[in-house]
Amino acid sequence: MVNLSNKIDGVILTELKQIYDERGAVLHMFRNDAPEFTTFGECYFSEVQPGAIKAWKRHRIQTQNLAVPIGRICLVITDTRRDSSSKGVIQTFIMGRPNNYNRVSIAPGLWYGFKCISDRPALIANCADMPHQPSESEVCEDEDFDISYEWAQHTTDGLP
Amino acid sequence: MVNLSNKIDGVILTELKQIYDERGAVLHMFRNDAPEFTTFGECYFSEVQPGAIKAWKRHRIQTQNLAVPIGRICLVITDTRRDSSSKGVIQTFIMGRPNNYNRVSIAPGLWYGFKCISDRPALIANCADMPHQPSESEVCEDEDFDISYEWAQHTTDGLP
Repeated sequence: MVNLSNKIDGVILTELKQIYDERGAVLHMFRNDAPEFTTFGECYFSEVQPGAIKAWKRHRIQTQNLAVPIGRICLVITDTRRDSSSKGVIQTFIMGRPNNYNRVSIAPGLWYGFKCISDRPALIANCADMPHQPSESEVCEDEDFDISYEWAQHTTDGLP
Repeated sequence: MVNLSNKIDGVILTELKQIYDERGAVLHMFRNDAPEFTTFGECYFSEVQPGAIKAWKRHRIQTQNLAVPIGRICLVITDTRRDSSSKGVIQTFIMGRPNNYNRVSIAPGLWYGFKCISDRPALIANCADMPHQPSESEVCEDEDFDISYEWAQHTTDGLP
């Protein structure tokens, strides 16, 4: 079966609630009754300096659940899985407030990377389904990657 | 038994790891093998504008696990529990990078509140042990509270 939707099988985008308060907003991230919740392994943060790229990473077992409460990133996911119905699809998400405060879940086996496009550092939160285990993930530096993605097309948006 | 340690029974302070990376740090928050981990209910964020106070709040059932990846806050916890060995103790924590990147766990039954002391808005992350249920928490505005805490003593630290 060929996937013609330009959506990667195993990637879930969910809009998250931002609750206004003049002292500072409350921002939803992840609940144990979310449809894609399975188990809680670890919550951690990855800060990304403006213009910096962290790419590429792939997990063998771990599922990522990402949200960006501070700043904005461009998240790129590419499906190179041999037997995937969406093999060859590249999906791109702008993530961050105010207009794209979303959660993106990334199944194991998918390569992903991100670039900070805001003028201030972005903060990515990950509620992964297992605690960090170095042995179950791979990192592949951009220049070695068979899909040399054009990160330069995502420029800083000039906003804080 | 009278608690003379100035520590509140049910409050746990844990130093968290900050892993340096020139593209942006990785910041630990909470793992399912942490000694105080029980269940995962919900992860959410609370932003606090510079100088703003969010106080007081008390949960009947929910345990909070707080960390501050962006900006800095002063967290105040006060023990008014009738049968607590630390009844009457007020504990104060400065939380935030670079020097106080910690997790504070707050047991149910304790009143707590916080003030942003950094020049930029602070971001508080909470990995609570149950999803938000309005019926299990109480909010008490400062002026009604029997301990009128001197928030003014915690001034902005003048740093971003």
